[in-house]
Amino acid sequence: MSAGESALLTDLYQLTMLQAYFDEGLHEAAVFELFVRALPPQRNFLLLAGIEAALQYLEQLHFSDAEIDWLRGTGRFRPAFIDWLRELRFSGEVHAMREGTVFFANEPVLRIEAPIGQAQLVETRLLNLVNFSSLIATKAARCVLAAPNRLLVDFGLRRAHGAEAGLLAARASYLAGFAGTATVLAAQQFGIPVFGTMAHAYIEAHELEAQAFEQFCASQPGQVTLLIDTYDTEAAAHKVVALAPALRRLGANLAAVRIDSGDLSEHARRVRSILDAGGLGAVRIFASGNLDEWRVAQLLAAGAPIDGFGIGTQLSTSGDAPTLDAVYKLQAYAGRPRRKRSEDKATWPGAKQVYRLLGADGRLARDQVALAEEVAPERASALLQPVMRDGKRLAAPDALPELRRHAAAELAALPAPLRQLDAAPPADSYPVDISTGLRALAAQLDRLPH
Amino acid sequence: MSAGESALLTDLYQLTMLQAYFDEGLHEAAVFELFVRALPPQRNFLLLAGIEAALQYLEQLHFSDAEIDWLRGTGRFRPAFIDWLRELRFSGEVHAMREGTVFFANEPVLRIEAPIGQAQLVETRLLNLVNFSSLIATKAARCVLAAPNRLLVDFGLRRAHGAEAGLLAARASYLAGFAGTATVLAAQQFGIPVFGTMAHAYIEAHELEAQAFEQFCASQPGQVTLLIDTYDTEAAAHKVVALAPALRRLGANLAAVRIDSGDLSEHARRVRSILDAGGLGAVRIFASGNLDEWRVAQLLAAGAPIDGFGIGTQLSTSGDAPTLDAVYKLQAYAGRPRRKRSEDKATWPGAKQVYRLLGADGRLARDQVALAEEVAPERASALLQPVMRDGKRLAAPDALPELRRHAAAELAALPAPLRQLDAAPPADSYPVDISTGLRALAAQLDRLPH
Repeated sequence: MSAGESALLTDLYQLTMLQAYFDEGLHEAAVFELFVRALPPQRNFLLLAGIEAALQYLEQLHFSDAEIDWLRGTGRFRPAFIDWLRELRFSGEVHAMREGTVFFANEPVLRIEAPIGQAQLVETRLLNLVNFSSLIATKAARCVLAAPNRLLVDFGLRRAHGAEAGLLAARASYLAGFAGTATVLAAQQFGIPVFGTMAHAYIEAHELEAQAFEQFCASQPGQVTLLIDTYDTEAAAHKVVALAPALRRLGANLAAVRIDSGDLSEHARRVRSILDAGGLGAVRIFASGNLDEWRVAQLLAAGAPIDGFGIGTQLSTSGDAPTLDAVYKLQAYAGRPRRKRSEDKATWPGAKQVYRLLGADGRLARDQVALAEEVAPERASALLQPVMRDGKRLAAPDALPELRRHAAAELAALPAPLRQLDAAPPADSYPVDISTGLRALAAQLDRLPH
Repeated sequence: MSAGESALLTDLYQLTMLQAYFDEGLHEAAVFELFVRALPPQRNFLLLAGIEAALQYLEQLHFSDAEIDWLRGTGRFRPAFIDWLRELRFSGEVHAMREGTVFFANEPVLRIEAPIGQAQLVETRLLNLVNFSSLIATKAARCVLAAPNRLLVDFGLRRAHGAEAGLLAARASYLAGFAGTATVLAAQQFGIPVFGTMAHAYIEAHELEAQAFEQFCASQPGQVTLLIDTYDTEAAAHKVVALAPALRRLGANLAAVRIDSGDLSEHARRVRSILDAGGLGAVRIFASGNLDEWRVAQLLAAGAPIDGFGIGTQLSTSGDAPTLDAVYKLQAYAGRPRRKRSEDKATWPGAKQVYRLLGADGRLARDQVALAEEVAPERASALLQPVMRDGKRLAAPDALPELRRHAAAELAALPAPLRQLDAAPPADSYPVDISTGLRALAAQLDRLPH
């Protein structure tokens, strides 16, 4: 079992609360919703990911024998409760937005209805999964918007926060429109296209750069990208031109050169001229090195002849905004709506639905968060759909390429002000209305004693 | 096998380079070193972590049968090379700084000497592990410096970047001086003390807050912390005072109250008065909610009567600086020193050692990066020590509490300007000298053709 599947991958307070619920005989259905309280600065929308992993987690949730023994050994829990934990499975109902959907603050993306112990226990891991994958899908979507028709590749594993972060970032960025990843395990696990070039170490392991180029081409049966900035970028481009006939004789398929340092725009321009003059007009230029959506947009705005970008650190950590403020809140217990009223952290009560209205141009016009039982606004689509009942999925998961097409359609439907990289002025930010029924319920709950 | 142990958790270019090395018969020893190119803004030092995980990874490195079959199926690699990969194990020598050691830019913390294929393949995962754990250990160390003698607990799993990030952050923050974590699986895997309180959902699942307090205390055999900000913080503190005799009759051990919203300083002051006036002077106040080292320092400077802090999001993502610029560079191949000369990314060549000199006050005074074969400066200690030979560890791993004591000693030996939370002025930043021998070697390599 991987760490991500372990029922112990949770906060201690979930288990102590479960023991209290158990002791009190509180086993009725709770409704929890997962939503983001506020968009990070410089984000005009969010792109949803992490739902598939969340459902896989719920499907397999259980405590292993070793985990049960360990819990017993801590002395924190009573035997009858531990016996109950041993039998615990997720048997609830789940509504979710589809991965690849654009969403906004205060919109539930996941709604869990289950006996309160089950629904409580899973909070930590559900947040952990949906927070991170949506963070990265959103960052990747911004790169995609900044670089239309360019090849974008995830280079981020070495700076991602651990193994799972690297894998989930590869998946989330592919979902958002990246062409693929450098991470081999992501290719194996998710079927994502995998890309690779060569590192400086390979060049340096040879006495001469030209010799390294030639040997590498001789070894690679497929398309080859040569890294040309180890010593002198333009000198290396000239070497590539000089080597081209020999490489052709080797049967090599020289597809691109990669530039990883210096003034990428200036180097790309000079290298493009050298390659073109040398008859290598079909060889593409690929750039990497400290890139993000702003840097890519600048390079393209400056007319840099760059055909593809490897984006690493800033993608796999969402470097400018490394956290989402997603929370998972109790909205009803035993059929009674609930509302947290802590200062600046109050929530909208009850099981909810998110409705989306498109404009005449087919673009996103307005959302409404309403009670699930309220009548839908006219011509609105309901974004939360049932995906699990009695702990079982209602349908097989969507294939990743299909979700990727959905994400592309969603990004294409973004209104212009939301597509820009910088924060839209408040007047242009997206309207998310709170329904009359929801406001009335909140006001009613505020009048109750506590 | 977990994702973190998989030999496929690497960049594709490592495998394509390995195929080229294999085809060329390049199997001689390479020296790679892992170091940070520059400290993040607002960091005056780094605290090392991730070495233990890196050594575990090297010890178990191999391709499983399923991975070999998958690689074969990609059609990217030739059969003889795949047969060679199947037998690949790490058989090299490793020097490392001890976890918990303070280090600076340009200082190798890990040096790998192995046949070039092995040493190359492991680059991605070694960076992934040491980058993240050191990032978090450093962030945690800053919190520890900001809050001397306070109880600090890692609350970050839900915002950490995936499962492994949550676990590694719990370990790294404990190593750096945190009292423990809320993450149960980290307690089970690493033996870290685990802490828990209660969530707002528990309070809201009850009709009345006071009833929730009483039921929770009845259920918990150990120390209890009550969350008091769900509705009205001061009103809840009064409820706690009123309930105290009943709780005592239940045998409850009420240790603390937690405040998670609003003006923490003001609430803590008022709650302290209410508890003291109610005879609950021994009940501690624990605070959480969007905390980091600066916020904790402000609260304590303002005299807020807070005894402990739960630090989540900003700790487990190192929110203000979510990446380290660590790299892993070829420094020698087949006995010949190597140097990358890319613009702004040149490296110091050769296998190196880091020497540390202490001042008369016992504090860190100056470091020197030198060639491993150079004579050590007088009274200097060598920070890189041999930890693995022929792919086997030279000694059992240090126990985590022992590493934690080492980290505490290291933090105690920091010069005053480096202990402050903001960036020290350049004049006060820490001197890391480059030895004469190292400068001479670099100059000599720059005269070679490439």
